[in-house]
Amino acid sequence: MKEQVPDVVIQRLPMYAHILRALKEVGVESIGSRELGAMLRTTPAQIRKDLSYFGKFGKQGMGYDVSQLYEEVTRVLGLGRPWSLALIGTGRLGRALIEHKGFVDEDFRLVAVFDKSHRRIGKKLGGVVIQDVAELEQTIKERGIEICIVAVPPAEAQRVIDAVVRAGVKAMLNYAPIVARVPKNVQLRQITPLHALQSMTYYLKSEYPAPSTSIEGRKEKKTRGQIN
Amino acid sequence: MKEQVPDVVIQRLPMYAHILRALKEVGVESIGSRELGAMLRTTPAQIRKDLSYFGKFGKQGMGYDVSQLYEEVTRVLGLGRPWSLALIGTGRLGRALIEHKGFVDEDFRLVAVFDKSHRRIGKKLGGVVIQDVAELEQTIKERGIEICIVAVPPAEAQRVIDAVVRAGVKAMLNYAPIVARVPKNVQLRQITPLHALQSMTYYLKSEYPAPSTSIEGRKEKKTRGQIN
Repeated sequence: MKEQVPDVVIQRLPMYAHILRALKEVGVESIGSRELGAMLRTTPAQIRKDLSYFGKFGKQGMGYDVSQLYEEVTRVLGLGRPWSLALIGTGRLGRALIEHKGFVDEDFRLVAVFDKSHRRIGKKLGGVVIQDVAELEQTIKERGIEICIVAVPPAEAQRVIDAVVRAGVKAMLNYAPIVARVPKNVQLRQITPLHALQSMTYYLKSEYPAPSTSIEGRKEKKTRGQIN
Repeated sequence: MKEQVPDVVIQRLPMYAHILRALKEVGVESIGSRELGAMLRTTPAQIRKDLSYFGKFGKQGMGYDVSQLYEEVTRVLGLGRPWSLALIGTGRLGRALIEHKGFVDEDFRLVAVFDKSHRRIGKKLGGVVIQDVAELEQTIKERGIEICIVAVPPAEAQRVIDAVVRAGVKAMLNYAPIVARVPKNVQLRQITPLHALQSMTYYLKSEYPAPSTSIEGRKEKKTRGQIN
């Protein structure tokens, strides 16, 4: 049994996987923590610390084996087999997400799409026929859908999230700007670009030092904010 | 002079502002930390701690004055005056962002849009004529643009970000799945939904307890992840 892995490290691993895959594709076989740190805009010490949670990869002075590390990171993340995905809401945002190249890739397979608009039901999105949202729970259960993306208007979001939870889904990405309520055993990641903008203005207006950007935009160091 | 305000608190403030505005609109005049905590899916203690950075708002047993707290939170964030915004990239994602209701609101005013495609230049998006990206630096300087949203393909993103930095912009939202390089005095927030999905599968596959969801999807408690 290993040490606990902090969630912040788990959230960085996709970026490690992304970089390692690119290195593998161009034929790089090994890489040092210094070079990997430069690519991930972090320190060699942080790289070594992050990777130490997952066993021994590097030899002193030899660098990390790119293929081996890539395999391990994707294995730890549970990638390398497709996860089945459903989208709820096919407005502009939902459609852009699915049609945006690179969003649904080999790791995620879109198997169902839902909307409540009768203008949209029966049409196709991302190769999938749009179903009535009334069929949500039954379809999720029947098709074993594991992850849902919620892209409905704020006023409908909690109701949709509740239905997704009732259907047994344990992971959701929510784009509606609400503080969604989910049981403790369900993961919900919130994507709210407006709020990201609103929190940046704090640093702009005050001309305080910006928070140091670590990989994946996470801020780990405290910043010198103050009231003025 | 006050204590340092951690970035994680600053990142939560937009959600406070969001909730407080909604309360104000329905005529709620005061609210306790317990009720506010319930709405923000956090503890009363966390609410009191967050707000303690910004002075005295509540009286013992009286709750917080909603209007006063709303004004203070928006003032701290630097909202309440419009910030000028530019979008670079008018593909599906860029268009969805601008046309998505509620993204650009009274706090943010879209003043310029750029693309490199001659099919798009000269057309309008969000009420703004799309300009050639070659005019980026000059337009940003002339129009005093303060925040940029980068929604271009990954292969072009770093070059665009460099141009935005050269033009003097200190805050960016980047949607391209790259580890972008910016100077220390520039804030860059990365929005990468694919990576959010990839980090959730860690918890799904392992059936470990999900990280406790705090407001705005931030995870502050460490989780009991392990390798299996």
